[in-house]
Amino acid sequence: MRQAGRYLPEYGELRRQAGSFLTLCYTPELAVEVTLQPVKRFGMDAAILFSDILVVPDALGVEVTFGNGNGPCLTPVRTLQDIAALRPERMQHHLAPVYTAAERVAQALPEGVALIGFAGAPWTVACYMVEGRGGAFTAAKLWAFGKPEEFQRLIDVLVEATAEHLIEQARRGAEAVQLFDSWAGILPSSEFERWCIAPTRSVVQRFKAIWPDVPVIGFPRGTGCMLRSYAEATGVDAVSVDSGVSAEWAARELQPRWAIQGNLDPVYLLVGGTELTDRIRAILDALGDGPFVFNLGHGVLPGTPPGNVALLVEAVRAWRPRGEEATGR
Amino acid sequence: MRQAGRYLPEYGELRRQAGSFLTLCYTPELAVEVTLQPVKRFGMDAAILFSDILVVPDALGVEVTFGNGNGPCLTPVRTLQDIAALRPERMQHHLAPVYTAAERVAQALPEGVALIGFAGAPWTVACYMVEGRGGAFTAAKLWAFGKPEEFQRLIDVLVEATAEHLIEQARRGAEAVQLFDSWAGILPSSEFERWCIAPTRSVVQRFKAIWPDVPVIGFPRGTGCMLRSYAEATGVDAVSVDSGVSAEWAARELQPRWAIQGNLDPVYLLVGGTELTDRIRAILDALGDGPFVFNLGHGVLPGTPPGNVALLVEAVRAWRPRGEEATGR
Repeated sequence: MRQAGRYLPEYGELRRQAGSFLTLCYTPELAVEVTLQPVKRFGMDAAILFSDILVVPDALGVEVTFGNGNGPCLTPVRTLQDIAALRPERMQHHLAPVYTAAERVAQALPEGVALIGFAGAPWTVACYMVEGRGGAFTAAKLWAFGKPEEFQRLIDVLVEATAEHLIEQARRGAEAVQLFDSWAGILPSSEFERWCIAPTRSVVQRFKAIWPDVPVIGFPRGTGCMLRSYAEATGVDAVSVDSGVSAEWAARELQPRWAIQGNLDPVYLLVGGTELTDRIRAILDALGDGPFVFNLGHGVLPGTPPGNVALLVEAVRAWRPRGEEATGR
Repeated sequence: MRQAGRYLPEYGELRRQAGSFLTLCYTPELAVEVTLQPVKRFGMDAAILFSDILVVPDALGVEVTFGNGNGPCLTPVRTLQDIAALRPERMQHHLAPVYTAAERVAQALPEGVALIGFAGAPWTVACYMVEGRGGAFTAAKLWAFGKPEEFQRLIDVLVEATAEHLIEQARRGAEAVQLFDSWAGILPSSEFERWCIAPTRSVVQRFKAIWPDVPVIGFPRGTGCMLRSYAEATGVDAVSVDSGVSAEWAARELQPRWAIQGNLDPVYLLVGGTELTDRIRAILDALGDGPFVFNLGHGVLPGTPPGNVALLVEAVRAWRPRGEEATGR
């Protein structure tokens, strides 16, 4: 479940204590507590480290702030000089509190509950770094399509930094890692190989050289039928699919070779009731027989009633593959 | 070319004269002039009527305003009472200036230059009506997924209004019509049939009952591999594809049965140069041999240099199918 428990009242409490969002990420006691909150409340099967994909540019020396409700704001990286000014050598020191948090979460989690580490994929992180904020990322695309050899240097820095970040999370106890390529879907198909697939493959290769047995989950959001070539070409072990992807299609085209994660539209957690539980069962009926991690297709929406998350957990646990009785366990 | 010439200085001049965006749409002399501007400057093969998908809710009695740069703002439709208060009987009178503009454009266009009419598809227009503005359209999805029988009533009103709007544009001289389903891509796959395909099919059926020979172009943006089932199930004659769709895939999977329109990423019009012309040729090499309308995959971006649009037109005109010499014409 992404974004830890940002919809939970106990999260709001710690968020106020911390003052800023990044302080929450960089204070191990708080990050550990926030990571564990949904596990404690709902008994999830896995926890995802409370952090943000933008801690990597922050560690590289880019100023990153999170306004209240306006999304992130970064000092834009727009020139070769800006790229040269990035400081990958700061990474380990700057992100030490994140790794401490990972280590403590791994120790604190109950037996059988996995810790998932994560990072943003190079393309998505580069989008934020070049644009300086969310949006249509026109400046990032303009640079990538217009001067690809320049933009490639930024991607190269991010490939190294991202791999290092994931490797260290695994060293501190993450049992799987996920690469969020949230903006892969804004790439025209002709640029998809160069800016989504190739950098992801490089990150996966570097990670697997150190941690061959730790699964890598790739999540190139909004890329529809490109998912198969993405999975084939990048070397990920599992594919996270957004809500726009048909669960039946994913079962047929992807699940024979890759584990699947997804893909309930988070709006159903606002809807609740039988609409929610029917949809959960439909996804499980399509994908539950193969290797599958039930999850949302996008992040939890603000205002989601915690009771509906409890209902989700209950519905997932109650489901049984066709032919098996709904008893035992 | 969508959005007429909003990137042209001569557009800015008329926009200032009109005062508000909707005044521009509802003043035939101005709407005609704006529609013709790109044709005069670049010699396009077709003109798309200068208007907006939100003139339909405006005609139905919803208050619609366009702030400067903040996107549209509507009085939200959130209850059955709000739906009952819509006034489809106002359509013809309220949109009379739009139809006058269409008629005059059709008369003014040079021989061989087609007029394309358009409307928003019911799902996309409903998104704006329920939400009251752009964004993630959570309120619209919540209503559609949570109380589908209520939301269906809004869709039913929009199916009628949209069909009527397209039928009247054809009567005034539009030689093809396009249905923009710009937010089809935010639907989870399980809701795609009900809210994108079914209403579009109803609009197409109503339109074709009156204008069987006027082609309908469908543009369900961001729906990737759903495009084939969309085209099969809705009865459109042509499919507009966004930049995320591989031109080779569209040529293989769609073009044997449907004409294709698309799909240059508008960022290339900011990039210009050989990056632009190489990309244009690649799209034409994939799709130019079959029934094809060269177009962008999304709207023209603000700040696009008109010179790059001229370069695009030149590159498209210079292209020849493999084996044919680049002479003559």
